[in-house]
Amino acid sequence: MNANTHPALVGSLSTPNPSVKLINFSPGPTSLPKAVEDEIAASFKKPGLTSLALSHRSPEFLNILDHVTASVKRIMDIPDDYEVLFTHGGGHGQFAAVPLNLCHDKSDIATYIVNGTWTERARDEAQKYCTVHTIDGRDPHTGGYTTFPELTEEEIDPKSKFVYLCSNETVNGIENHRLPKLPESRRNIPLVIDASSDFTTKPIDWHGDGVGVLFACASKNIGHPGVTLTVVRRDLLGKDKASPLCPGVFNYTITVEAGNLWNTPATFNIEVVGYLMDWLEREGGVAENERRSIAKSRILYDVIDNSDGFYGTPVQEKALRSRMNIPFNIKGGDEELTDEFLIQSWNEGMVGLRTLTPFGVGEYLRASLYNGITEEDAASLADFMQRFARENSG
Amino acid sequence: MNANTHPALVGSLSTPNPSVKLINFSPGPTSLPKAVEDEIAASFKKPGLTSLALSHRSPEFLNILDHVTASVKRIMDIPDDYEVLFTHGGGHGQFAAVPLNLCHDKSDIATYIVNGTWTERARDEAQKYCTVHTIDGRDPHTGGYTTFPELTEEEIDPKSKFVYLCSNETVNGIENHRLPKLPESRRNIPLVIDASSDFTTKPIDWHGDGVGVLFACASKNIGHPGVTLTVVRRDLLGKDKASPLCPGVFNYTITVEAGNLWNTPATFNIEVVGYLMDWLEREGGVAENERRSIAKSRILYDVIDNSDGFYGTPVQEKALRSRMNIPFNIKGGDEELTDEFLIQSWNEGMVGLRTLTPFGVGEYLRASLYNGITEEDAASLADFMQRFARENSG
Repeated sequence: MNANTHPALVGSLSTPNPSVKLINFSPGPTSLPKAVEDEIAASFKKPGLTSLALSHRSPEFLNILDHVTASVKRIMDIPDDYEVLFTHGGGHGQFAAVPLNLCHDKSDIATYIVNGTWTERARDEAQKYCTVHTIDGRDPHTGGYTTFPELTEEEIDPKSKFVYLCSNETVNGIENHRLPKLPESRRNIPLVIDASSDFTTKPIDWHGDGVGVLFACASKNIGHPGVTLTVVRRDLLGKDKASPLCPGVFNYTITVEAGNLWNTPATFNIEVVGYLMDWLEREGGVAENERRSIAKSRILYDVIDNSDGFYGTPVQEKALRSRMNIPFNIKGGDEELTDEFLIQSWNEGMVGLRTLTPFGVGEYLRASLYNGITEEDAASLADFMQRFARENSG
Repeated sequence: MNANTHPALVGSLSTPNPSVKLINFSPGPTSLPKAVEDEIAASFKKPGLTSLALSHRSPEFLNILDHVTASVKRIMDIPDDYEVLFTHGGGHGQFAAVPLNLCHDKSDIATYIVNGTWTERARDEAQKYCTVHTIDGRDPHTGGYTTFPELTEEEIDPKSKFVYLCSNETVNGIENHRLPKLPESRRNIPLVIDASSDFTTKPIDWHGDGVGVLFACASKNIGHPGVTLTVVRRDLLGKDKASPLCPGVFNYTITVEAGNLWNTPATFNIEVVGYLMDWLEREGGVAENERRSIAKSRILYDVIDNSDGFYGTPVQEKALRSRMNIPFNIKGGDEELTDEFLIQSWNEGMVGLRTLTPFGVGEYLRASLYNGITEEDAASLADFMQRFARENSG
């Protein structure tokens, strides 16, 4: 990266120009839909206590908890034999919680499909608690995570307690638009899905896809950091199933038995998830949300694909391209042009295209298109990209 | 409890009467000082993104994180060889994290001073990860937690990796107004303090008291649930010190090395802690805050002690009475009068005196006097208690 400390180059999210609309393309945490943000702001003006001040055991908070739980179940079409948990510790917490709940001891086997940054981290964490078999998703030619591996019987040990995958790898820009099917003979093995960055943007066939556990940290599509939504199929619960080493705060059975109140839940953070769910329902639910996700991402991929190589994106297989996070480089990673792109787009209010992560995304910028981004917002970026390409081609 | 479902009897926190001021005596989560609540509300009206929408890697959030960290260190007089962590999973998360960080394996010894509900839970959790020696604080006569045990050399194994205590037991109403001194020959053993419910209300002599780790969930004195402030003495950190079974998200060394960004921190929840710290500094810091805590609790204990037995409180030793949580019963636990007390006080806006916890506090109501409660608020309750006693004595 350029040593220049122009705010646009170090990921500043401040309004560069108060007269332009701020569009937040951050990979998360990020903005929620404007209507939700307005509702949150309005909640601080209502008489009575805000949920920041509510005891988690008060009837007022229990109403919120019941409402959010019912909304999530209804909107995401979650069958009755699944429990909805509001868990602590973000996605990383679940990286530990999943094997600690589903494997009783280190000899239990789990199969991890590793096709990006987050499944790498999840797999590394799981190795503390179980015997991990890895299905390596790296492209054998490039060594990069640009494909999704074929799932064969041979690669999935039938004794696996679960098969783990991340349905959208935010850093790498790979998504399963529908969950992959395990080979027929392995369909009894529960799938564990990290849906942190694509939850609510497409339907889930809970039973049909054999989902055992699905979790989504709030801070991308459904809220702000501090709570993670975890959905667990009830047959995976049980006093003696989890590892005896599982911290109580991560134990699914304890959490369910205590009605999400074994310890103090993140009350306000949960209420915000509720606002998002209400918004989603008003807007037409998952089907409409998927239509929008397809439209928002298509307009950007179209600009990239039609740029005569001015823009590039790592994932070539269109069926695997993320609708949530669109990585793109400029003239093969030209540093000067990339900086110029960042500064100009930032001046027009488009922020969050470069985040200083420790993951070394290198030459790629990334436009993240979560629920806070409208079709118009994506079109603004597409428009800017086209202009920038025109002005800097040749 | 009375089967009557009057909202006052099931812990409703709604304004019973819009013309009265709501005073929230909940044991936590609870209200923050009005100036802090106003500042939070105002933050949603400012131009630009609120911290709900800030990437944790943006310069804007890093400024917040730096500011909060520096404020906590300055206001709580934390020496330079301690690190401030913003951890996940609440107090219960730390019940697991403490032994997982300070004990390498199950054979390592830790000494737990158990003198109430929360140290019981912490001890039970620790038994998964280390060899626990318990110093039992129950009163040998009543079997209740109404005293603090004497700490003798014989009871503290010199090989203990730490000695654990909770400086204020919220359910039982016992507080160490200053941290107890370990016997001379045991002073090299680090103290681990659960200060969830009394942090910021009295000074801490970090080195003098041998504090190794101190944690405080935010939702009582310093914020709202979803983040926990954990302070760790640097010599206790180190790659090989924690148990290899410690989840990454609970690992102090990983958290410190990543500057609190190993995983996404609860950004907004942390910002709120910052507002509270700014407020505390403006109001005169810990010394003034302790003066207020003494005044707020004294006025209530005085009413109890001068009520000719109309009110009772379980802890008789004044030096151990909690300034944070004042448990009291009415005429030895008279159910009808207790219900009447709850309904009348609720009608006057005083809420949170009964919380439906699973801990069976039984006959006792509880007035919690965290930072959100002013001296005037405590005086209002004292005044009500006196009136109620006058009208119902004899």
